[in-house]
Amino acid sequence: MKIYGYFRSSAAFRLRIAMNLKGLSYDHNLINLQAGDHLSDSFRLINPQGRVPALDIEGDILTQSLAIIEYLDEVYPAPALLPHDALGKAKVRGVAGLIACDIHPLNNLAVLNYLRDQLEADEEARIAWYRHWVKEGFDGLEKILSANVETGKFCFGDSPTVADICLVPQVVNAQRFNCDLDCYPRISRIFEECIGLKEFSDAHPSNQPEAAQLA
Amino acid sequence: MKIYGYFRSSAAFRLRIAMNLKGLSYDHNLINLQAGDHLSDSFRLINPQGRVPALDIEGDILTQSLAIIEYLDEVYPAPALLPHDALGKAKVRGVAGLIACDIHPLNNLAVLNYLRDQLEADEEARIAWYRHWVKEGFDGLEKILSANVETGKFCFGDSPTVADICLVPQVVNAQRFNCDLDCYPRISRIFEECIGLKEFSDAHPSNQPEAAQLA
Repeated sequence: MKIYGYFRSSAAFRLRIAMNLKGLSYDHNLINLQAGDHLSDSFRLINPQGRVPALDIEGDILTQSLAIIEYLDEVYPAPALLPHDALGKAKVRGVAGLIACDIHPLNNLAVLNYLRDQLEADEEARIAWYRHWVKEGFDGLEKILSANVETGKFCFGDSPTVADICLVPQVVNAQRFNCDLDCYPRISRIFEECIGLKEFSDAHPSNQPEAAQLA
Repeated sequence: MKIYGYFRSSAAFRLRIAMNLKGLSYDHNLINLQAGDHLSDSFRLINPQGRVPALDIEGDILTQSLAIIEYLDEVYPAPALLPHDALGKAKVRGVAGLIACDIHPLNNLAVLNYLRDQLEADEEARIAWYRHWVKEGFDGLEKILSANVETGKFCFGDSPTVADICLVPQVVNAQRFNCDLDCYPRISRIFEECIGLKEFSDAHPSNQPEAAQLA
């Protein structure tokens, strides 16, 4: 399998974690978002949407990180990244959705560039925007994780799920933008638990081949 | 079951379609987003994130529209809203994710209000923003639907899936903001196919109890 990704893409980071948790090896195909590789005709042939990650499985191209991770979880069921019962799945997917739909899309590079180029938002305004959506999302998430009796070492129980796979890249991004995370003890504790695992830390942006060159 | 929703919320619209397709009846609990009902302490007790929809299933509260719809599809399997094979599921979830992660979150009310209040974006700039993200997403989606051999009467095959459930509310929103949809013949054709079904049209914002009063 081959991942089209970028070290700093949160969505590609999610996919790397999932591949590591499943023990799947992959080739890495760098799509440099800062250089605009994703907008090239050649990459549009792979993913017409021009986004990473994309996963090439013997010629079948899958897109959208959560769709790909659900696929991997079905085809390579161990270790499971979702609980077995429908209600548990809904709770895990709910946390994943909160992050993947309500925080991350507002903070990606294309959006920050639009704010700068079209709305003439200066750096301070862009950072305030970034932190605002992290705070909006994490305020709710912290309460949800605190209220759920299923919250354990990880977001749901004592093994990593899709919820943790979404949480970790979002926290790493929040750290990069110096968001105040002190008021989220539950999120912070789960983050530390995850990042202590090799499968998560190996997937960290700073541990990708292009990091030294592009950071 | 009880839906906490709002007629114009795309995410609540998705859930209404899914409930209708499954033939499930529900009570409607209006959360007036324009009036700020979602930010009230009483609603935060139901969904700490302060977002709609939320589904109350005998006291269990589910949040995040796609997580809820996947739950319903597991518990009430007929008619299926996802293909049976893993690759098909990934393609349908990929389309759903493109809309639910890459278009919709940028265009929701909270974001448009932030642009107005914090970034002093005037109406013209907010409309341009709205149309920009619809175009970015639909440009890719039109190509994906055109390239997929599985595209049929609906986004995937000849019966509605989660992809169509996401597509229809997004098109309705795009219409409301007068986005140019002429360049998306595939999207438009599938939208017409869907909206011709009672399950979709009954879920339309204009057919909700509060529409006459609040529109």
